[in-house]
Amino acid sequence: MSELERDVVGIGNAIVDIIARCNDEFLAVRELSKGHMELIDWAAAESLYDAMGPAIEISGGSAANTCAGVASLGGTAGFIGRVAEDQFGSVFSHDIRSIGVTFETPPADDGAPTARSLILVTEDGERTMSTFLGASVELGEPELDAAMIAGAAVTYLEGYLFDPPKAQAAFHEAARMAAEAEREVALSLSDAFCVERHRAAFRSLIQGGVELLFANEEEIIALYEVSSFEEAVSAVRGECRIAALTRSALGSIVVTPDGIVEIPVQPVDEVVDTTGAGDLYAAGFLYGHAKGLDAAICGKLGSLAAAEIIGHLGARPEASLSDLARTKGLIS
Amino acid sequence: MSELERDVVGIGNAIVDIIARCNDEFLAVRELSKGHMELIDWAAAESLYDAMGPAIEISGGSAANTCAGVASLGGTAGFIGRVAEDQFGSVFSHDIRSIGVTFETPPADDGAPTARSLILVTEDGERTMSTFLGASVELGEPELDAAMIAGAAVTYLEGYLFDPPKAQAAFHEAARMAAEAEREVALSLSDAFCVERHRAAFRSLIQGGVELLFANEEEIIALYEVSSFEEAVSAVRGECRIAALTRSALGSIVVTPDGIVEIPVQPVDEVVDTTGAGDLYAAGFLYGHAKGLDAAICGKLGSLAAAEIIGHLGARPEASLSDLARTKGLIS
Repeated sequence: MSELERDVVGIGNAIVDIIARCNDEFLAVRELSKGHMELIDWAAAESLYDAMGPAIEISGGSAANTCAGVASLGGTAGFIGRVAEDQFGSVFSHDIRSIGVTFETPPADDGAPTARSLILVTEDGERTMSTFLGASVELGEPELDAAMIAGAAVTYLEGYLFDPPKAQAAFHEAARMAAEAEREVALSLSDAFCVERHRAAFRSLIQGGVELLFANEEEIIALYEVSSFEEAVSAVRGECRIAALTRSALGSIVVTPDGIVEIPVQPVDEVVDTTGAGDLYAAGFLYGHAKGLDAAICGKLGSLAAAEIIGHLGARPEASLSDLARTKGLIS
Repeated sequence: MSELERDVVGIGNAIVDIIARCNDEFLAVRELSKGHMELIDWAAAESLYDAMGPAIEISGGSAANTCAGVASLGGTAGFIGRVAEDQFGSVFSHDIRSIGVTFETPPADDGAPTARSLILVTEDGERTMSTFLGASVELGEPELDAAMIAGAAVTYLEGYLFDPPKAQAAFHEAARMAAEAEREVALSLSDAFCVERHRAAFRSLIQGGVELLFANEEEIIALYEVSSFEEAVSAVRGECRIAALTRSALGSIVVTPDGIVEIPVQPVDEVVDTTGAGDLYAAGFLYGHAKGLDAAICGKLGSLAAAEIIGHLGARPEASLSDLARTKGLIS
């Protein structure tokens, strides 16, 4: 077993978020499914951007947000993902490195620009994402950093990466590398529509060695094609060691070999923008898990991190999560 | 006199703001003067960016922020400024157009990238700016849209544009165009260091026909090289018809031919980021002025617009300023 160098290595789409507010009518007219992620091509991205209101740009990407959260909690993280050599690529690279995450995937020079997600935030704080994958779409086995994976306690895979054609194969290879180094593999299901598109592939990967699964209620129900959350919980028990299942305002539950732990939701003053809530829940949980904390504390760290980013625009923490966690007595 | 098409046309640097938080020590180590703007070259911009924490990108530029504010209040505005044909240029162009401001200056293809301002926000909400002017630096007379200037009630000039070599000449030409069309010229002094660099040129432009001057306490004192705010007020009275002078937490005063009007500050829950406070004060004032409202209402509209953007990161309004102004009974 190689030396343990990091708590987490995340593999995912390297994306800059372009966030604007809109009303429900704007979504309805464009047939955008509220709360979900849709893949769009360049022409659709340009057309939607033209129609959107004034925006702000913030580094995003699901697993990248999780890695940023782990670093903000004081953990050590690396990220593998593909940007282009352009201004958005520089922004993404700067932001993830400046929070302390190791990011060494070479930028691509094949012409496709850095991925961007056009995120529309409605008054209820819900986010609806239309993503142009750009340079991210070609992530594959050559980008996998075997040493980084072997040196991380957990290799964390972003479900959205099941969409790009080559990335699924890379996921299986990354899981093999982690297993060979006797490390754990974690997976986030990312989006219910994404689960619908790739159900069999997700099931196969989970059965092949995912120790830790992250999903929300809708995603886990979609994965097992059942009609209730309770049935989904039963189904997941046999398939992976730990499942952390989030239920928005109902908090989360953690399915472990020793039983089920219920985690209350962390209250927030105002839900401004839910972009990244699941990513940051995973960050808190993974940090605690890598530090050997028990499931209840891991879940509470997840809720705390999610609550911080829900209170402002964007999916990266503005406050120090380690300071917040210390204030709450969750870490010392 | 040509037909009145717009309330305001702003001429200024077309900039994307890159905003990160830092502590006072970070500023001290880099000898950055808190609350001020410094011009930097590309190498210095790269070095400072490397050292900065995670950032967000938001369209900025002083006069551009003012135009966005006028549009958010329900007014009509145009903007003249120079971006490059790059991703930041697209971001700037999208954001200003999507809020309803006419922006038709052709993007430059001469290689210099779109201007960016690296803005460091300390815990007290104060912002310190290091600006790389990029494509903005070559703005000159060819970019002036004579028809747009002739059709706007007020041509608003950003003091920061006194720094780029060709822009000063363009300012005199823009003022001449406005005068020829029997329109008003407004000027913002922008920054006390900028006033120190270009005092004589500012004085000459003001005496040559600026009807409406915007400055904060430090800037107006620097302009007249006096030792008190009262002396500065006396000095400005003879030079331009109306001067709107902001004093941070002390509110603002408006010097008019009929006397001096004191405007109380609009309370804010929390000062998050003062970037753009002066720009948005000018937006509120200019909107009221173009609509023929009296000085007290113009000042209150300025305070209202400034208060909105102080409450969040970035210098463009997140809420509808016209809704806010209506709620306060300032406009109907």
